[in-house]
Order: sequence, then structure tokens, then C-alpha cells
Amino acid sequence: MIIEILATGDEILTGTVADTNSAHIAQALKEIGLFVVRHSCVGDDVNHLVSTLQEIAIRADVAVVTGGLGPTTDDITAEAAAKSAGVELVLNRSALRSVEDYFTTRNRPTSNSNKKQAMLPFGAEAIYNSVGTAPGFTLKIEKCLFYFLPGVPFEMHRMISDSVLPSIETVRGGGRELSRVKTISTFGLTESATVERMKGFSAEFSEIKLGFRAKFPEIQIKLYASGKDRKTLNALMSKATESVLKKIGENVFSVDGMSMEAVVGELLTEKKTTLAVAESCTGGLISHMLTNIAGSSKYFLLSGITYSNDAKTKMLDVSPEVLKRFGAVHEKTAKMMSEGVRRIAGATYGLAVTGIAGPGGGTDDKPVGTVWIGLATARSARGYRFCFPFNNRSRNKKIFAMKALDILRRELMG
Amino acid sequence: MIIEILATGDEILTGTVADTNSAHIAQALKEIGLFVVRHSCVGDDVNHLVSTLQEIAIRADVAVVTGGLGPTTDDITAEAAAKSAGVELVLNRSALRSVEDYFTTRNRPTSNSNKKQAMLPFGAEAIYNSVGTAPGFTLKIEKCLFYFLPGVPFEMHRMISDSVLPSIETVRGGGRELSRVKTISTFGLTESATVERMKGFSAEFSEIKLGFRAKFPEIQIKLYASGKDRKTLNALMSKATESVLKKIGENVFSVDGMSMEAVVGELLTEKKTTLAVAESCTGGLISHMLTNIAGSSKYFLLSGITYSNDAKTKMLDVSPEVLKRFGAVHEKTAKMMSEGVRRIAGATYGLAVTGIAGPGGGTDDKPVGTVWIGLATARSARGYRFCFPFNNRSRNKKIFAMKALDILRRELMG
Repeated sequence: MIIEILATGDEILTGTVADTNSAHIAQALKEIGLFVVRHSCVGDDVNHLVSTLQEIAIRADVAVVTGGLGPTTDDITAEAAAKSAGVELVLNRSALRSVEDYFTTRNRPTSNSNKKQAMLPFGAEAIYNSVGTAPGFTLKIEKCLFYFLPGVPFEMHRMISDSVLPSIETVRGGGRELSRVKTISTFGLTESATVERMKGFSAEFSEIKLGFRAKFPEIQIKLYASGKDRKTLNALMSKATESVLKKIGENVFSVDGMSMEAVVGELLTEKKTTLAVAESCTGGLISHMLTNIAGSSKYFLLSGITYSNDAKTKMLDVSPEVLKRFGAVHEKTAKMMSEGVRRIAGATYGLAVTGIAGPGGGTDDKPVGTVWIGLATARSARGYRFCFPFNNRSRNKKIFAMKALDILRRELMG
Repeated sequence: MIIEILATGDEILTGTVADTNSAHIAQALKEIGLFVVRHSCVGDDVNHLVSTLQEIAIRADVAVVTGGLGPTTDDITAEAAAKSAGVELVLNRSALRSVEDYFTTRNRPTSNSNKKQAMLPFGAEAIYNSVGTAPGFTLKIEKCLFYFLPGVPFEMHRMISDSVLPSIETVRGGGRELSRVKTISTFGLTESATVERMKGFSAEFSEIKLGFRAKFPEIQIKLYASGKDRKTLNALMSKATESVLKKIGENVFSVDGMSMEAVVGELLTEKKTTLAVAESCTGGLISHMLTNIAGSSKYFLLSGITYSNDAKTKMLDVSPEVLKRFGAVHEKTAKMMSEGVRRIAGATYGLAVTGIAGPGGGTDDKPVGTVWIGLATARSARGYRFCFPFNNRSRNKKIFAMKALDILRRELMG
């Protein structure tokens, strides 16, 4: 079954809004085992829309179209659908009922411009819209069954799950395929090193489609598979996941799409431990990430964001002599910061970051991208030095923060 | 000039990520007065990609294609482009230089899988990528000039502005229309209140297309205009901007796309003042925003991220009695936090936020979305209470942080 998606409207075409509708529809279809082969987007121009619908009508078996069903003169989708099929617009009784029901249940009169929304191509079947004024409709053009839906995400989502998916299931008939997607999140290897390590995987698991996605600073490995039997499919995915874990090792931080900060939060909770953070160049990003997790107050106690040397002394008790002699970006400073914040908070762990995010501040022996990470526990404080090749403040903040959390994660894993 | 955009990749096709690249490209083209007629998206399938490229080659004069230029076996765009044009892949010297430069400036060796990225269709011209490994390229197929770019947004954005737009300008040649886009950033009014306030604008400035864009928590007002004469056009835009400022007033925080944190940073620098921040529920977001601005170390001294009551006392000297009697989310606490952090840092301003971001922690008189903001100066400390209607942790963090920065901005504007 060849399926396409078409988004309509000048807003999307000109980039004023990104097209999230098509992504939603593709995901919903994937969940019932159907894969879309193409998305398109055209603007509010009848001729363009007609020619695009006619192209799709020849290529696809099923198409889902969003947008242009509203009451204004911009809304030309029903007209274009009628032209593409070579039929007239006629008043559709079920569509009129959908429009009138919407207003009646809200104690408001139905206006004439809203009644326009019930004018559908001859032969169309209305799709009920319980949460908005614009009814959708299905229409066969050439060999393709089109589902026309409003572009308002909220209304469209509802109609996809209530009407479109069940209808497509019926069209498809029995014997349908199940599908699985697995997201394995890694950190610490470059994209090409990750690809290198995964050599041999596709030969071993020929049924699985392998994908890579760089979501800076992490790299996700994606496994896609489909089949008829749930048990066989699940067993295959588990085996494949094991194989990835073996190849990529500790650089894998989650196999279920969980973020690094959520993984760290879970480990801290499990071990009934607490954390305090001292940030210089990351400027609050680590704390922001940690506190994005609901319930983080159980393990996250406090942070000192100490941008100046003076702040490091006042807030974290870092010795002014050490700062003077070794500078802010140094092992001793990172360790003292982690010890200081741990002591002040009375936390199990103290995590500290001090480095040069850029664009300024780099030197020959400490170029932009240099960072020292300190980790203090009850027993000791250790320092870790890295130098990342980015000359970009925002990327450096991100990778420094991620590296610090990863060091804590590895410590917590023992 | 007929322009199309094509996004490639299974990630977008299956809806795992929404296609924001195409929106970015359409916007960038609109800003130089060019309108796209169609977007498409196909997956990582050579045959599909070839037939789509060939269709576009017949329809369009210019096409921008993103994705599939990386070092992995998924990356099939160069191969598909070569097939569509009926040519071979050959080693492109300029592309190889782009790849090697990337690694050399980062003191890393170029791997063989990266060298694959320099294999381009015969006749292609490389587009230099200064911020990533994948060079882009241009290639004429049939009557259409294609620009192939990597799908990593960060790299693609850079190549669009540095190479693609200037090249398209050259192709387009003289006699063209100039165009202007003005982004006016506002905060503090709802979208419908903003629209209401702008009533009468379009009657007064009929040559200008007016747009609104909700970029939570700010609302942007966009003005689009085009014409042949630079002077007339600039005068029109200035007059229109004045009119917007009059209608929206102090809720406008920038008229040049600057972020709130950049505006606050500029005001602090201008007045040679400094800032210290105390964050509870925003958990580091304010500090993260402030330190995203290069040069923020001139005015941003330190923050205390004090999540627990205990931390508020230890780090910011908030009296345990006040916390016990009034609780963490209270005017007195917010004021003491702002005074405490200001004193410790020796800063001109102390800014504090304490509230309930959710999902838990709300009560009848302090529901989720309640926040107290404290602002301490040499003369006084003031508290401001707000209650936002969001039951969403991430939205609450964002709007609390923005509100705190806006209060400081208004104070700095006098």
C-alpha cells in the first residue's frame, strides 16, 4: 500500500510555521505498521493544489491531506479536490450535521461562512469533527483514496485516531504487519566511530534496518523492524539491542529514549544519594537540565553558578591562591569547586565544571573547548580534562554539561 | 523563478522528527523576496530519491535539497543526484579540501568514511562547510539548479546564508525587487491581546503584510514589505515600526530579533552595572540564558540555584524562620533571596525567582504556575507575584525566567 501525505497552506510553504502535522500522521501510521513514501507541501493556490492532487492520485493508494477546510476565502481544498476529481461541490448532509452539532452543543448559531464548510465534492463522505467547525472528508480520485482533514493540529489529531486510522485498517484488511522502533542513545564516540563500531551488525541482523542520528551532543542508533508475529519480533529486537550494547559498550546511556539527565536522576534516586553542582563556563545548563526532570528535588540540592574567580572563592571556598597560581581552568580549581559545593550542600556528590566555552578566552595551551570536570565523593575528588574541537559557545556548553553528567553516570554505575 | 525544497531522510519521512529545515529555507528565501512553490520529503531510498529529483528537475528552476550527505551507508544523496543527472561519482578536490580542513583545524585525522563525503557527481561544484564534515554541492539536472546541503540544521543554516543565498542572488540577476522583514519581539500580552492592539495597522499600512508568530513565551510581530526603491522601503519600515511601538508599548523588548537575555545584557553593560541571580524553581535556566551571550562575564557575577529550603538558608542567608512561617513561595522569601545573592556577590542587582513549576507541589492558594520574583537594588527589594495558567513544568520554567528578566529590563530602562 503506497501512502503519501500532503500539507497545504502558505503558512507552512513560506516557513512561517514548521510542518508538524505530517510528522504526526507519519508516526501514527508507523504505529500501525504502515510506512509513508512521500510528504509534500503546497500553498493556497487552486491550480497548484489541483495538479499536486492529480500527481498523487496516480502514484499512491492512500493519501492524507491537511489544511484549507476552514470558512475563509483562503480555504480552497474542497474546491481543488472537486476539480481534481472532475465533480461539483454540493451540500453534504452529514458534513452540515457535523458543523451544526459543533455550534449547537456550544449554544451558538451557525453562520453562513461556516455552512460553506459543508459544501463537499460530489461523492465525498464526510468525516465527523467533534472538536472544531471544519468537517473532513474522503474522496476517491483515480486509484487513490484521499482523506482530507483540517490543519488545526488539535482537530486533526482527533480525527486521525477516531476516523482515519480505523478506516485505513479496514481498507487494508487482515494480516497486518507489526512494527518496532528502538532508540539507543550513545555519548562519547564520534558519528564515524559509532558507524565503525557497528560494522557487521547489518550482516548479522539482515531483517533490521539500521539508522544513525546525530542529536548533538549525543548520537542515536535506531533499529527498525517489522513482522507478523509479536513474540518473534520482540525477541529479535532484544537480541539486536544486546548486540549493539556489546559493540558500543558503556557509551550507551539509554535504550529507551531516556535523556542523560533522566538516567542520572534515576541512578541517584536508586542509590538514595544527593548531588550538588558547581558551574563556571556551563553557566547553569547542568542545573537546568537536571531540574527539567519532575521530582529532581529528591536528589538535586543546589548549584553555585560561579562565573568570576571572586564568586568561586565567595560561594565555593576555592582558595584565592590556587586561582591566582593555576587559574580558573585547572585540575586543582575543578577539584576544589566540587569539594566546596559538596561540603556546603552536604551532598553525596559534588560535580564541578570549569572551562573555556568561547568565543574569547582561549590561549595556546588552553584553547577554546578546554574543560576540567571535578567529581567529589566522601572519599576523594578527581579531575578530568577534555578538549573539544568546537569554536562555538553554545555547542561547548552542551558538550561540557553532557560530559560532566556522563562522568557522574559512570561513577554511579560503579 | 520556480523554487522547490526537498528534505530527505527516513527520520523526517516517518515523523520521528518534524521537518524544520524546509521552514528555515523557505523563510530565508522569503527574506530575499523569493517564494517557494512546493516542499517534498522522501526517505533514504535511492530509487525514490532519483525519481523525485527527476520530477523536480523538470518542474523547477532552483531546488534546495537537505540531508543524506553524511559518512554512513544511509547517506545516499550524492549517489542519487549522480544517477538523476546520468553521471558518475568522482573525487571532488574542493570537497576533499572542505572535509580535510574541518579535521585539520581540529587536530584530528580524516577517516576513510569521511573521505567518502568528497565523492560528488561529475560536474558538481562543492559548497564549503566550515562547521561540519559534509560538504554540500550544486548540480544542474535538466533545467534545474540544485543545491544539496547536509541535514544538520546548524551546518545547513550556515551554508544557506554564506553560500546558497548569494549564489541564488547571482542567478536571479538585476532588476529585482528588494524586500524587508522586520521582527518585533514582544512579551507580556497574550496572542489575542496582541492582535487586538494591532487593529488599524493594516488599514494604515496597506503595503505591509502583517504576521504574528507565537514563539513561547514571546510573541513576534512580523512586518513584510517589498519594493524597488531602497530609501522608500526603509522609510516605510521605520514608520511602520514606530506605529507598532505605539500600539504595543513597553511590551516590545526588541525590534531587531535580539533575545530578552541579550537586551538585558546590553542594558547592564551600558549602565556599567552587575547582576547576581538566585533561582529556585527555574533551576538554572535564567543563568543558562544569560551566559549564552558571549561577553556575559562582564556583568553576570554568580547565581545560587537553591532548590531546597536548606540550600536557600546555607547559600543565600534566607532566614529559616521566614521559610518556616511563610514557605518558600512567598514575597518575603523572594525578597530575602534577591538581597542575599546581591550581598554575597557584591552586585548592583539581585534577581530571585521562587515558585511552583509543577507537575506536583501546587495547593489551593498557591497552584502550579504561581511564582514570586524578587528584585534587590542598593535602595530596596521588591516582590512581584504572578500566576500563569500552565500545567507544564517546562513552560512554567520558561515563562518564569522570561518574566524575571523582563522585570529587570523594565527596571534598567528606568
